[in-house]
Formats: sequence, C-alpha cells, structure tokens
Amino acid sequence: MRIGCLLPFAFISGAVAFVAPAARLRVRGALLPTHPRPSTTAAQSAVAEPPDTNTKETGISVGNVVNGFERYVFSFGDGCDTPPLDKNLLGGKGKGVSEMADMGLPVPPGFVITTEACKYYRNNKRAMPEGLDMQVEAAMKVLERQMNAQFGSIDNPLLVAVRSGARVSMPGMMETVLNLGLNDEAVEGFARQTNNRRLAYDSYRRFITMYSNVVEHVNPRIFEKELEKMKEEQGVTQDVDLSADALKELCQRFKALKLKATGTPFPDDPREQLVRAIRAVFDSWDSERAGAYRRFHGYPDDWGTAVVIMTMVFGNKGDDSATGVGFTRDPSTGEKRFYGEFLPNAQGEDVVAGIRTPQPVNELQAVRSGSDLPTLEKTMPEAYKQLMETAQKLETHFRDMQDLEFTIDKGRLFMLQTRTGKRTGLAAINIAFDMLNEGLIDEKELIMRIEPEQLVQLLAPVFDPQEKKRASPHLAARGLNAGPGAASGVAVFSTEKAVEMKAKGVKCVLVREETSPEDFSGMVAAEGVLTMRGGSTSHAAVVARGIGKPCVCGCGSLRYNREENFVRVEGTGMVLREGDPISIDGTTGEVYFAELHTTPSEVLQVLIDKTKLPEESKTFQQFNTIMTLADKYRRLRVHANADTGRDAEVARALGAQGIGLTRTEHMFMDKERLTDVRKMLFSETEQHRKEAVAMLLKYQKSDFVEIFRAMDGHPTTIRLLDPPRHEFMPHDEEELQQLADAMDTPLEELLRISEAIREANPMLGHRGCRLGILFPYLTEMQAQAIFEAAVEVAKEGKTVMPEVMVPLVTSKNELRHQKAIIDNTAKAAFERSGMTLPYKVGTMIELPRAALRAKEIAELAEFFSFGTNDLTQSTFGISRDDSGHFVPAYISGVEYPGEGQEKIQILDNNPFDVLDQDGVGELMEIARDRGKQSNPNLKTGICGEHGGEGRSVNFCHRIGLDYVSCSPYRVPVARLAAAQAAIEELGGGAEVAYQGPSVGYIPGKTVVS
Amino acid sequence: MRIGCLLPFAFISGAVAFVAPAARLRVRGALLPTHPRPSTTAAQSAVAEPPDTNTKETGISVGNVVNGFERYVFSFGDGCDTPPLDKNLLGGKGKGVSEMADMGLPVPPGFVITTEACKYYRNNKRAMPEGLDMQVEAAMKVLERQMNAQFGSIDNPLLVAVRSGARVSMPGMMETVLNLGLNDEAVEGFARQTNNRRLAYDSYRRFITMYSNVVEHVNPRIFEKELEKMKEEQGVTQDVDLSADALKELCQRFKALKLKATGTPFPDDPREQLVRAIRAVFDSWDSERAGAYRRFHGYPDDWGTAVVIMTMVFGNKGDDSATGVGFTRDPSTGEKRFYGEFLPNAQGEDVVAGIRTPQPVNELQAVRSGSDLPTLEKTMPEAYKQLMETAQKLETHFRDMQDLEFTIDKGRLFMLQTRTGKRTGLAAINIAFDMLNEGLIDEKELIMRIEPEQLVQLLAPVFDPQEKKRASPHLAARGLNAGPGAASGVAVFSTEKAVEMKAKGVKCVLVREETSPEDFSGMVAAEGVLTMRGGSTSHAAVVARGIGKPCVCGCGSLRYNREENFVRVEGTGMVLREGDPISIDGTTGEVYFAELHTTPSEVLQVLIDKTKLPEESKTFQQFNTIMTLADKYRRLRVHANADTGRDAEVARALGAQGIGLTRTEHMFMDKERLTDVRKMLFSETEQHRKEAVAMLLKYQKSDFVEIFRAMDGHPTTIRLLDPPRHEFMPHDEEELQQLADAMDTPLEELLRISEAIREANPMLGHRGCRLGILFPYLTEMQAQAIFEAAVEVAKEGKTVMPEVMVPLVTSKNELRHQKAIIDNTAKAAFERSGMTLPYKVGTMIELPRAALRAKEIAELAEFFSFGTNDLTQSTFGISRDDSGHFVPAYISGVEYPGEGQEKIQILDNNPFDVLDQDGVGELMEIARDRGKQSNPNLKTGICGEHGGEGRSVNFCHRIGLDYVSCSPYRVPVARLAAAQAAIEELGGGAEVAYQGPSVGYIPGKTVVS
Repeated sequence: MRIGCLLPFAFISGAVAFVAPAARLRVRGALLPTHPRPSTTAAQSAVAEPPDTNTKETGISVGNVVNGFERYVFSFGDGCDTPPLDKNLLGGKGKGVSEMADMGLPVPPGFVITTEACKYYRNNKRAMPEGLDMQVEAAMKVLERQMNAQFGSIDNPLLVAVRSGARVSMPGMMETVLNLGLNDEAVEGFARQTNNRRLAYDSYRRFITMYSNVVEHVNPRIFEKELEKMKEEQGVTQDVDLSADALKELCQRFKALKLKATGTPFPDDPREQLVRAIRAVFDSWDSERAGAYRRFHGYPDDWGTAVVIMTMVFGNKGDDSATGVGFTRDPSTGEKRFYGEFLPNAQGEDVVAGIRTPQPVNELQAVRSGSDLPTLEKTMPEAYKQLMETAQKLETHFRDMQDLEFTIDKGRLFMLQTRTGKRTGLAAINIAFDMLNEGLIDEKELIMRIEPEQLVQLLAPVFDPQEKKRASPHLAARGLNAGPGAASGVAVFSTEKAVEMKAKGVKCVLVREETSPEDFSGMVAAEGVLTMRGGSTSHAAVVARGIGKPCVCGCGSLRYNREENFVRVEGTGMVLREGDPISIDGTTGEVYFAELHTTPSEVLQVLIDKTKLPEESKTFQQFNTIMTLADKYRRLRVHANADTGRDAEVARALGAQGIGLTRTEHMFMDKERLTDVRKMLFSETEQHRKEAVAMLLKYQKSDFVEIFRAMDGHPTTIRLLDPPRHEFMPHDEEELQQLADAMDTPLEELLRISEAIREANPMLGHRGCRLGILFPYLTEMQAQAIFEAAVEVAKEGKTVMPEVMVPLVTSKNELRHQKAIIDNTAKAAFERSGMTLPYKVGTMIELPRAALRAKEIAELAEFFSFGTNDLTQSTFGISRDDSGHFVPAYISGVEYPGEGQEKIQILDNNPFDVLDQDGVGELMEIARDRGKQSNPNLKTGICGEHGGEGRSVNFCHRIGLDYVSCSPYRVPVARLAAAQAAIEELGGGAEVAYQGPSVGYIPGKTVVS
Repeated sequence: MRIGCLLPFAFISGAVAFVAPAARLRVRGALLPTHPRPSTTAAQSAVAEPPDTNTKETGISVGNVVNGFERYVFSFGDGCDTPPLDKNLLGGKGKGVSEMADMGLPVPPGFVITTEACKYYRNNKRAMPEGLDMQVEAAMKVLERQMNAQFGSIDNPLLVAVRSGARVSMPGMMETVLNLGLNDEAVEGFARQTNNRRLAYDSYRRFITMYSNVVEHVNPRIFEKELEKMKEEQGVTQDVDLSADALKELCQRFKALKLKATGTPFPDDPREQLVRAIRAVFDSWDSERAGAYRRFHGYPDDWGTAVVIMTMVFGNKGDDSATGVGFTRDPSTGEKRFYGEFLPNAQGEDVVAGIRTPQPVNELQAVRSGSDLPTLEKTMPEAYKQLMETAQKLETHFRDMQDLEFTIDKGRLFMLQTRTGKRTGLAAINIAFDMLNEGLIDEKELIMRIEPEQLVQLLAPVFDPQEKKRASPHLAARGLNAGPGAASGVAVFSTEKAVEMKAKGVKCVLVREETSPEDFSGMVAAEGVLTMRGGSTSHAAVVARGIGKPCVCGCGSLRYNREENFVRVEGTGMVLREGDPISIDGTTGEVYFAELHTTPSEVLQVLIDKTKLPEESKTFQQFNTIMTLADKYRRLRVHANADTGRDAEVARALGAQGIGLTRTEHMFMDKERLTDVRKMLFSETEQHRKEAVAMLLKYQKSDFVEIFRAMDGHPTTIRLLDPPRHEFMPHDEEELQQLADAMDTPLEELLRISEAIREANPMLGHRGCRLGILFPYLTEMQAQAIFEAAVEVAKEGKTVMPEVMVPLVTSKNELRHQKAIIDNTAKAAFERSGMTLPYKVGTMIELPRAALRAKEIAELAEFFSFGTNDLTQSTFGISRDDSGHFVPAYISGVEYPGEGQEKIQILDNNPFDVLDQDGVGELMEIARDRGKQSNPNLKTGICGEHGGEGRSVNFCHRIGLDYVSCSPYRVPVARLAAAQAAIEELGGGAEVAYQGPSVGYIPGKTVVS
C-alpha cells in the first residue's frame, strides 16, 4: 500500500504500521497532540516521475525487516512512504527532511540510513550490517527513478550529498561529503546537463577536496595551497575568476596530490565513493571533537549517527541561485520576525567560511543591522515569499521556532533541514511567552521550553554604564552582539592558552580571527569570545550562545599579526597582546582593551539592588512569570547554600525557601578571627582555649543573627564545623611564629602540634563530627552561638527556624553525642533568655555507611541532607582535589586495547558535576527508604553542588526528596528544573532529563549548498 | 511447689517453668545433651533450717513477673528453686553458684540480681528498677532464715559478700565488697558468735577499706598508711600480729579517715551499705578499666553485670581454714591433674596480693614446682579429698575443665565459683584431645573447644637452644614459666612506657614487680611480661596467657629500685635499665638481659623447616589432627596472601589452598629494581620507559615463576599494581638526583613531575586500575610476566592456575579495559609458547560503587575479592593511616554530654581489625547477590586483613563466600574459624562468634575469702 504525499489520506485511514513510530515522536515539550498534517499539493511535488514506494523498491518489508534483514534504510520524498518520524532512529536531520517531505514541502529526494546501522557498525568491529548494501542499492534506485538520472552515468549523472545526523544537533562535529558521484566522466555529463562547465569542475574540485579530507584524512591545506598557486598562475585573486579549464586542470592536480598523500588513487567508482563516505560518517561519530562535544553535553556515546543521502541541489548556479540559513524568529531576542543570512551564487560552506560577508535575508534585518548589502527579499522576491510561507508552515506544524537551511537552485527553493532552533535564554523566554499568547503552547509547555541553564544568562552580570564611561578611552572596536552578557579578563589568542589560563584560575577572553570546532574547549574555558570574522550565525556566535558565553563577533577592525602574535586596531595605534586586559560586551558588541567591572543584571537590579522597579524591566517580568509558574508546578522545595547574611538576602530574593547549608568554617577564615580560631583549635592550655572560644562565640553569634534576620520565617540549616583541623594550621613560618606569640607557646611546640595533626588523607581524617566529638567545646560554642542568635532575632519579632546539622556521621552514636550537646546548649540558652524556640537536629548523609545505617540514624535525626560532594568522593573512592590526574581521561575516553572500538569512555560525566544516579544515587535511595522506616517525618534534601544542576535536581524530584539546596544564583535554575521534573512526571517532555545545556545552531564547516 | 535440693526429683517431674531457661544454657561447645544431674544427698545440705522457696518468699511470681514488676532477683542454695541457668541473665558467677547449688554441692546460700536490673539502671539515668528493692528485701529474708541470722543484728549478724558477675569473666575489672553487714555493734555480735574478736575486727577494718574504696572512691592508700602506722605503734611487722584491740582502734581511725575524705560518715545501716554496694557494682561496669577490657575483647557495652550476694564464709578463722583457687586440669599444659594454690588462714585477696606465697594444693604439684611449702593434701586431707571429688563432679557435669574458687571455713569446704577454665593454646588442645579420648566430647566439640587465636601460640617462634647457649652469660634469672613463648625487646618498667614504645614501633618487654588490672594496656602493648612477685595464677600470668603473651612471673631474685628506676639481680652485679635489651622464655621461665633471636615453633620445624619429623612432635600431631578435623567440617576455602615464592611455600605448608592475593607492588620496592620502576613510572621518553619495562618484565616474571612453582595445582591470584604513583617517587634530594641521572632528566624536571603528581588524598587518587588505564603498558608488562611465567612453570609439568585481579574498579568499563589488555597479552604469550593455559580475570571489590554495580561488573569478572581494608576505608570515610587521631577515642569512648551515662562508645571495635558487618558487611552481601545475578559461577572471597580474624571469617562463611585469604601464619586460624562457623551452622556453639581472644582466670584484687 502506498501512503505519503501521493495518498495523504492514507496516513489517517490505514498506515497503521507507521502510527507507532510517529507517536514516538515528541517535539521537545510538545504536550498538545500533533496538529493534523497539511495535505500536500501537486504543485509542491517537485519531482516529476512518481516512483514506487519504499516497500516495493527496497524489497519485501514487514515491519522493520527487509528480506529477512533488519531495515536500516528509509527513503523520503515524493511518492515514498513516510518513514517513522523518530529522531532517535533517523537522526534529527533525517527526521526533519522526512517530515518536511511528508508535509509536502520542497525537499530534494533522498533516504536515511538509521542510527541502528551505525550502532551495529560500532559494536561489530566496523562491519556494516548484513543487508545494508542491498537496501542502499535499492534506495539509490528509487532516487535514480525520482530524479530521472543515473548514479555514475556519463550522460546524466545523479549527484548526492552524504550527511551525518545524530538524534541531537552536534553542529560541525561530524562529517559531510557533497557532490558525490562525480568522476572524470560524470563531470562532463554534469557539465552538459547543466550547461555549466565551470559549475561542474568547481563542484568536482570541491568534491575531491572534501572526499579526500573526510574519507581519507588528507590535510585540506595541500589543496588550498594548490588552489592559491593556480590563481597565481592564472593571475586572478578570486576563486570565482578561475576558468572551467583552470578548474579542470586543478582537479587533475588534486587527484595527483591525493594519490601522493595516501598512496591510493582517487576512486572513480561512485558506488565505492558512496560506501566509503557512509563509513566515514559513521567513523566521524567517534572523532575526537565529536566525543568532546558529547561529553560536554552529557550525551551517551552509544546513540550513534544516522546518514542522510540527498540529491544535490546547487546554490552556486548563478545569480538566480543562493544558499542560506535562517530562524523563524530572532534567536537572540526571540522577536517574531524571520532572521536569516544568505549568499547568492554560493555553496553553504561559503556562508560560514567568513570569506564573503553573508547578506541579510530581509529588509528589516538589513536596516536594523545597518547592512547595505542586497537582501533576498529584494533580489529574489518569489523565492523569499516561498521561504516565508514555508517558515510559517513549519512553525505552525512544529509549534516552535525552527532553524532552517535552504538552497535556491535557479530560483527554485529547496529546504534542506529544519529543526527546533536553539536560542539565547532571553529569546527562549520571549518566544515561549509569545507562543503562549499566540495559543500555540500552554503554561506547562512554556515551562518545558526554557532550559534551566538559560536562566543563568538572565542573572549574569553586565557592565555598568558608569564603568563604561570610565573605560571609554579604551573602547577599541565594535562587533556583532552575538552572545549577550559581559566578560572580562586577559586576552588569549589560542584555545591551548585559554585552557591553560582556566587551569591556573585566571579569567580570560578568547580572541580569534574566527573559531572552528577545534576551539570548542577554548570557548568553554574562556569567559567570553571575540572574533574578527563571521556573522551572527558563525561558529563562534552560535556555540557561545549555546554554552552561555558572552560573544562579540565579526569585529573587522581588528587585525591579527600572526608572526608577532598581537592584535592591532586598524586606524588606531591600539595594540592588544596576549595577557593584556580586555572586556567585551556581548549585548552591545563593544570591545574594550581594559578590564571593566561588572554590574548586576536587570533581574538582580530589581530583586536585590532595588535600583530598578519591577515595572521598568520586561526581562524581570518574564523572569518573574516563569518563576511563578515554576513554583505553581514544582513539588521540590528549593533552598540555598548561604554562609553570610548577604548571601541569605540574595537567596531569599531569588526565591530560596530556606537555607539548606550554612558552612560555618567559611566564617572562621576571616583574617580577624583566624588567630582566635587557631587558638581554640591548637591551644593546649585551658585558659587560652576558653578565651578564644569566648571571642569566637561573639563572632559566630553575630554571623547567625544576620542570617536569621534575612531568613525570617524560613528554615535555616547550619552545619557544624567540618574541615580537617589541619587546614587551620598556618603554613608559613612567619604566620606560625605570630600564632606562637599569640598562643604564648614556643614555636617548636606549635611545629610539633602541626606535625602531629598532619594527615596522609585529610578528607578521610579528623574532620566533621569527629572534631566535635573529640573537642566538644567546639560544638557547644557553635550551638550556643546559634541559639543565642536565634533568641535575639526572635525577640525582634521575627520567626527563626534553626536546624543544626551534624556533618560526616557514620553511626547513630556520633549523632547521639553531638545532639546531646546541642540539646543541652539549646535548653540552657532558652532558660537564660526565658524563651523557647522550636529547632531541629539532623545530619549530613555523606558517607556510604551513613546511608546504609540510615534507619538507626534517623531514630535521632529530624532531617537528612545528602552531602553529595563527599558522598561521591567516598562512593567512588575519588578525591575531588586529585581527580584531575585521571578523571578527565576517564571522561574523554582512553584508547581501547581490545577489539572492535577505538576508545573506551569510563565515565559519562564528571560525577562531581552531574550526580551519579547509579551509584551515589542508589545510596541516596537506600538512605531515604531506611530513614523513613524509623522516622516517617524525616525531612530529606541535598546540599552538594549537584543541588543546582538540572539533571541532578530532576533525580532528586524522582526519588522524592523534600528539597534541594544550591548556591543563591542557581536557585532560579533549581526552581525551574524542579518544575520541569514535576511536569515530566505528569507525562510531559520526558526528554528534558537527557538534555545538556543548550547549544545554538552551527551551520558547520561543510554545509550542503 | 518446692524443687531443688530438698526435692530433687521435682526437676524431672514437674518444674516445667524452669525447663526453658535451663535449656537456654549452653556451655561453650556443649553439643551433647546435658548429663542428668546428680541427686543431692542430705549430707551435702549444709544449712540446717530449710527455708521456703523463692516463690513464696519473694512474693507472687508468675514467669518473670513478681507482684507486677519484672523479676530481677533469684535466690539459690538449699531449699530454693533453681534459678534459670542462663549466664546472660545471672552472669557467669551467678549461674555457676546457682548450678553448683542445684547439683547439691556446698555453696554458701545467696541470691543473684540479674543483668536486666543493671541494664535498666544504665538506661535510666542510674535509677534502680521499680520492685527491685522489694525483691532484694525478700531475698535477704530467705537468706536470714537459711542462715538463722539477721542482717544488722547485734547478736547474730548476717554478713554477705556483694560481687559483680558479667556473662563473661572479666577478672579484676569490676568491684566486690566483702563482710558487708558489719557496724560497730554487729562486729561485737560477730566476735561473740565466732568467739574470735580478732577475726571480727580484722573483717571490719577490711570491710571499711573496701566499702570506702569501692562505693565512695576513697584512695585505699590512706588506710594502708594508717595500718603501717599502727603496726609501728604496736611494734609489730605483720598484719596478723596486730591484736584485736589494735584492730578495733584501727577501725575507728579508718572511719574517721573516711569521714575526712568524703565529708560523710561511714554508714552504719547495713541496708544502706547493701544498696550502695549494689549500685557500686553496677557503676563498676562502666569504669575505665572494665570498658578497656571489653573493647579489647570486643564485648558489647550493653551486656551489663549481674550482682551476686552470698553469705560470707571465712578462710581466715585459723589454721583449719583456708582459701584457694584451682583448675580441674593444668591450664598451662592441659595435663589431667588438679592444679591449684591456696593460703591457710587467709582471705582471697592475700593469694594475689603477693605478700604471702601461695602453697601448692597437692604433692605432685609441690614436687614438680620444687616447692617445700605444705600442701592442702597434707595439711587438710579431708577437705582436700572433698575438693577433689567436687572437682570431678563438676568436670563430669560441665564436660570441660573448670576453674574453681573455694574457701575452707573451719575444715568445711565451700565452693564460691565455678566456670569453664581458660587455658593456653597448648592446654586447650591437650584437654580437648583428652576429653575426646575420655568420651566426654566428640570431634565437633573438640573443634569448638579450641579458640582459633590459640593456634597462634603453637606457631609462635621460640628461642633456639644454640641462641640460648650463646646468650648464657646474659642469663640473669629464672622465674615461673607462666605463659609459653619467647619474647624479646627493650625493657620497660611501666605501662605508659610500654604503650609509648608500641606507638613508636619498638618491641618491648614489660617488667613489673607485679601487675594490676591497670597494667592491661601495657601488657597488650608489650611482647611479653616479666614480674618479680606472684605465682602462676597471679594477674600477670593469667592475663598474659589469655592474650597469648609470653610471661615469666615470680622472678624473686630481681629487685626494682624505684628511686633510680632500675632492676638489679640479687647476688650478682647485673643491672637492667629501661631501654636495655631483654629476652624472656615463657616456656622455661628463663630471663636474659640480652636480645635473643627466635627460632620457629615445633609445628613450623616439622612443616616448613623439616628439621623435625612429624612423629617427633606431639604438638605437631595435635595441630595436624585439629587441622584435619577442621578441614573435614569447613566449607570455606582458605587461601593466603603471599608476595614471594617463600611466602607461598609457607602458606602451602600451613594448608593454604591457593593464593588469594599477591601484591605486586611489594616486588617493586626492592632496591635493585626501584630505579627501573621509577623510570617506568616517571620517564617522559618512550625509550627510557621501554628499557625500564623490559627490565621489570624480567624481574616480575622470575617472581611469578617462583610463586607458581610453589602453588602447583592451586589457584594463584595476582593483583595488578595498586598504590598511588607518587609513592614510588623518591623523597630525598639525593635519591632524586640519582634518579634524575638514571633517567637522563634534569633534576628540575623530575621535581616538576613530583610536584605535579603529588596528591592531597592519595588513597582517593591515581592508584589501582586508574594507573593501568592511563598507563596501559603497566598492565601489559604485568600480564606478560604472569603468562610467560605460567607457561614456563607449566612446561615443567606443574599445574598453574593464574588469576589476574584488577584493583579499585568502580565500573564495568574499567574492568573491560584492563581485561582486554590481559586477554590480548595472554593470547600473545600462549601463541608464542604454543601452549594455552586456563586463567581467570577478576576484580577487587573495595569501593562502595563497585559493590553497588556488582551486577554489571560480574558480567566480565570471573571472581570478586573483597578488599575489606579499602572497603572499610571508603565506607567509613576513614583513612587507616589517619585513624589514630580519633578512632582510639571512638573505641575507648568519650565523655557523654547528655544525661544518664558517663561515657559513650562510638565504635565497638576498630573496623580495620574486626570487619564491620553492619556497614561494610552489607556492601559485601549486596555485591555477592548482584554479582551472582549476572554470573552464577562467580567466585567470591576476601583478601583484606580481616581474612585471618575469627569473627570476620565466621561472617564470610555465613554470607556464603567461597574463600578467605589471609597472611600465611594465620591460615591455620582461618581454617579452624571456618570449621567452627560450619559447625555452628549445624547448630553447635553459637557463642564462638561473640568471643574475643581467650583470657585466663584472674582471682582479681578482691576475691571473697
């Protein structure tokens, strides 16, 4: 039975076989049922001869089996069955083109090799699955019939693009080969067919370069050099000025270069070209950079990539041809207007190569960006109109902003790609609100549309106008405002340098002529990115937005002197050397050769500084609405980790419902107090110790007073002193001498104490409650400070809810000991003040034994707070401080010494960043279950760094914790993540849990023309 | 209904109420049904008037409830119901006297306050349980009627002893008060009654001293001083020469001293005396030294003590009276002859005080020990005969060697105590074999009778006769051979010094005039103990035997000069100062002022050195029988940890069935190899590294060849390199320079590397398989050495069973990586040699995550070996190296800051010594379950230090591991422990699991006269 574009009704009436896969499709956050598909019109059916269906052409297909083999190939386009619209199977690109074909939009016909084939290939020592060759052969036949052309034909050759496409967009990370099918004979046929010899040989030389590079790993520089040489010989400066004959000659030279580089001739057989290109795409999944990208985003290695094989269309056939990319709405601001760039008479790679400046698609955009380049709207109004209609259809169909690739082949529009467009945090929010207003999505979907990490952008600091005025003499240049936010630091000119600075803890800004996928790690390491070339859709711009880094790009007045490694500003005497201070404003595009201080974001100006009224800031209002909606749906409470009154105020302003962790040791590190702290910890005379304790009591009490004031009416969890005693011992001679004087102790004695308490493994040493048990006066002093402060603040009329948390317990008895001190001290404090306050005593669960013995511990504990930093450390036996020696290699993968795969990745993520649900998570579940057994009212939460990480928050929701606690600025992230987890539980947007931080669209270095 | 001595048949005919408690009784290892009790004869019924039963006298008693209160008091003796013979309830002492009374043996009547009362008291802020006062009052009434005397009566006062008695013997650790009931009036009545004023006032002054000390913590020195003063005044030198009047005057002075010391007068009211003495006994359970004792033996704090209140009998009424202690067989050798000591006209404390030399009980003993003191056999033949008959009855009844206390009151024998006698390892074995031959016990019971730790004594080294000849000029003295074995080290004269030396790692011998319970920790710390006073049953002798330390005691020719702190040998010029070398032979009693080297024990001479034939050594034959029997019953396999061929040979000789752990890093520490090891680990040039690897390959191969040869036919588990890389870096400048030269690397570069790999927490750092994953050549080299060695030994015709063990995994992928190298290397080695051998690849489970992910890991692992040292470390978050800062305090207990108890003990045992079954043990069970899920054939074992510790071996049996692996010399211990676990499982001797190392009998400092 034939279904699809020719028999659109069949989808509804009978194509049961495809209903299940189609139902599997879930556009991110698409809670509403998929709109009925528009029926295709004959006009949109671009290819003349209707071919047979997939079923007929690819053999006997029953379900997913073809001729007894698993089905790995699905054709799309005019006359074909709609493939199962499952991006896990077809990849994002394959699913996008299949779905557009199904909608009747103009898509060059083609077929998809599924990710299952790639998985098989990876798991079977790079062997192609059985039956795949036959299925590809059959799909090529369909294509030949659709296009009325023959693969490898001398007269009428069929040319295809072979493109990668994973289930998520990994822009520029994997390989593509264009113009495949050309050889010395077919190129002539192509020339005749198009009546354009120059096009034919230009395509051929591009194909040879790309094939040699992608499939056989030949360095493309050798071809570029030869191209330069040829231009010199021919006395021309531009590629386009080379004649067809010159290009033909160039092709022969390229083939010779390829032979020399690899020892094998360039393959003339198109079928060999095809098979090897498919393999190359599969292999590119395991390339260094693709692996690095997946690790950054937390995508599993075993997803694999699909391969999309599409008939070639050409944007470089002349002035009636063009290639471009675009977003159905503005990805930087979210504004509802098409936003795109194109190059006439060009192939896609020209757009991103930065050689030619891309032109704005429409007039509004041109005006706004001050561009005087001709727009598509003006130069090809028909194609433009068709593009706008297509964009509208796609948005209505997918109910989200789309990111498109298109090519205009002699005035005719072809869609090459559609997918949900990545966007800045601001844009995500604006679009979501607009679509809510347009009735496209509902409240819950709005919440699901905003990635928690995107909120960070709204909270990130900006440059203060005053600061800018001050720095105006250092204003060096203006570029495109490609990634919002402010960044400053020292300038670095390479990724290596950026990574090095990051490792040293020095903030830096990466300054490059342009960036390539190899610069990814440098961009991650830097505070911000500045490029001299490339537009708003260049690699730098899109990646920066994706990872939330401020970015200014296309800053053309900067010139990089490679030999002497400095940057100068054209027309001025200003010079920037590596290590010089630099600041960039990604919101305005300004570049300063100076270090500018930052000022809080608009949201913080309203919430915290109160320098702006709520009604003055739309950003704030949106932020506020999101938070209000998030709070409506989430079940998890969100607390903050705050060590000072100021932290507590910020936390409250950002919506924290309590403090989950106050680290009292941070209070001790103050210079003024440190001597007393040391006297308390190291004095061997009772007198000195008592004096020191009395001083510290005063300090601690005032700390807690401030915190309790800020937390009026909200629970405040204070952890007793935790770090190894040795950490407080001075390390240099001078400080030691000072302490010796202050303690009235000979230096030798102090050195002896210092030596005696030194530990081989301080994280496993005398710390946590082990301090309070051996030195009960520590616990007593802290408890006294807490309760006296609580009483004082309560007497001011505020509601104080202190919760005292005992760290590092492994047994009930430890808690029993500490709780006795706390209770006695509370009782005494309450008696002295004539006032009693409710309070809780609980414990950290941060060692495996505590998790296992949770039942007993909960007989005394009123709450458990999972200290997932330490719990990760002990469960894995990995010290966070020392993990740098091997964890990066574990994540990036090491060479696999066995058969069948090149690399083996030991860890998917750094478990200190993303909670290890399988190990650490199980201990949390064990502790929760056992704790509740003996104490059904036990309150549970998390206060490790994971409390502000989206996937970890999601896990905390799923295992039924009561709260998460994170740093104040991550409270909004946790609130949103908690809401998404709750909505997911209701059945919506299950994909959120598997998404890393968003990354913008990158055309990649080899986009189809 | 009355049962007991007057109606002996009633026990069989109707006392159903007591059948259950009696059945609860289990003499250690008593597998046979208890023999029928001998019926008592009227002649043995020592007290005239038959009293009413417990039931009638103590109120309405239903089950364990009396007048609505729990029953805490059980009377024993003539005419009483037999109390439930449960030593957990009555304590060992209470159960012993109750059972003797039930057998009709002469026991002074009395009653027991149960351990339940003590538990209540400890858990309820030192409040006595309700109803206890009434029950005690009732029991006292019974006693008054039995004795026809009145408590506090002026004319005919009843005097009692108040003694402690826990479920296990804790000699000298808790308190006793004798002669209770005396006051200024009652003493006169007592004098009249006994017609012995001197006895009366002597008893009174002893009572005042003991009461003031035990109940009110008055330092007894003040009374001793006053006693000395009185002797001076009276012009006498011996206590016994003081007249009754002098003693009466002394009592008044003592009372005045007591008033001055405490501010309160001595209580005249006997009822107050009694209540306060009972409290004092309860409190003594929580004394420092009792706590220390329990910790050493691993007894829980919550057992509590019973209180035994018995009518006083007197061994100091004249020459027809005596007091003594004895064993039904020789506790040192096991020989079947009564062995005991007594003092005529004395109270028990005189026996141990060392003031008078105890006399041998019988002639044989006198001859053997060369004593010319009169024996009991000669001086009181009737009482002696009765004692021998009683001893025989007790042995037949309890089917084990008994340890007795007796008093002869004017020619009449009273039994004050019986219990299973502690014995040396040798004696335990001899007795068990004798009883097997006598038909008293069976094979299984024989196994249960020998504590695994006792085997250590059989294996401990002795002094070689040649060595002794050499050292003969240094032979300083001879004492009693009180604890077998040889010890040498430096002399220390105090417990503090012994502990200090131990901490410094210096071997020492504790030399004391005599020891007291306060010296316990010094004895534990020392290699052996030498005393100048005291006999074979003195504190020093008994404790030393109990903890397996060589001991020489009563070495009278030594004189300690307290002022100048040295020891001289009387009649010679020899002098011993603290720190001088000393050696003692506890088997012969010789003392050398020199350090003697030791020689292997007889068992090892037969098994390992082959310098003795099996038939030449009875000890060996017994050892061999025990091992043969143990092997017959045990299910657990016992492997050994062995790092060299020599270790492996020893292990095999001692019965190891395989090697569970070969630590390859120990092989690397050899000076000759260390430079190559360092070159391999730190070279940054490929060339250097390859050279070093080639050298190490050679070394490692030869190591493995030796081990495989020794292990012919037995599995041999080799662990890959485990320790942090940094451990191999030289630490002093000179060595660094040498290495720099050897590596052709500038010193600065090496320092840089050293700095770079330094770790904050090396135990959580780059070690274990994390080394082999980042430096695969390490694993490859080790695997190559293993398989090449295996092939080489196999070609010699031996059976090689290599098992390669990957350390510190947390995930399947780590093992996958390492296994790939191992498998590839094996394949290559087998191909080169033309020979294939079976081998296994497995992993350590030593991190919590490995235990949790065991299911996946077992998909690749063929065996799991629990590395319980590291697993304990990570589960508790305690570094073994740093645990000294707080774990000792956790075990000894810290002051409890809350109400109701003085101290709180955080840990029962050091989890690095005794496996933490609750935490670490659960992870082991989880790993075993999950591992077997995916690999039902998974082999499981343990290779931490716990593998040779009895309680831990028992646990390993219970959770169904396949093997334990321990150090070679502990293999016999593990074999026996494994057999006991298996027999226990069959229903025998469940107590073994709760027993620490055996401790001998100690009369204690305050034994009843």
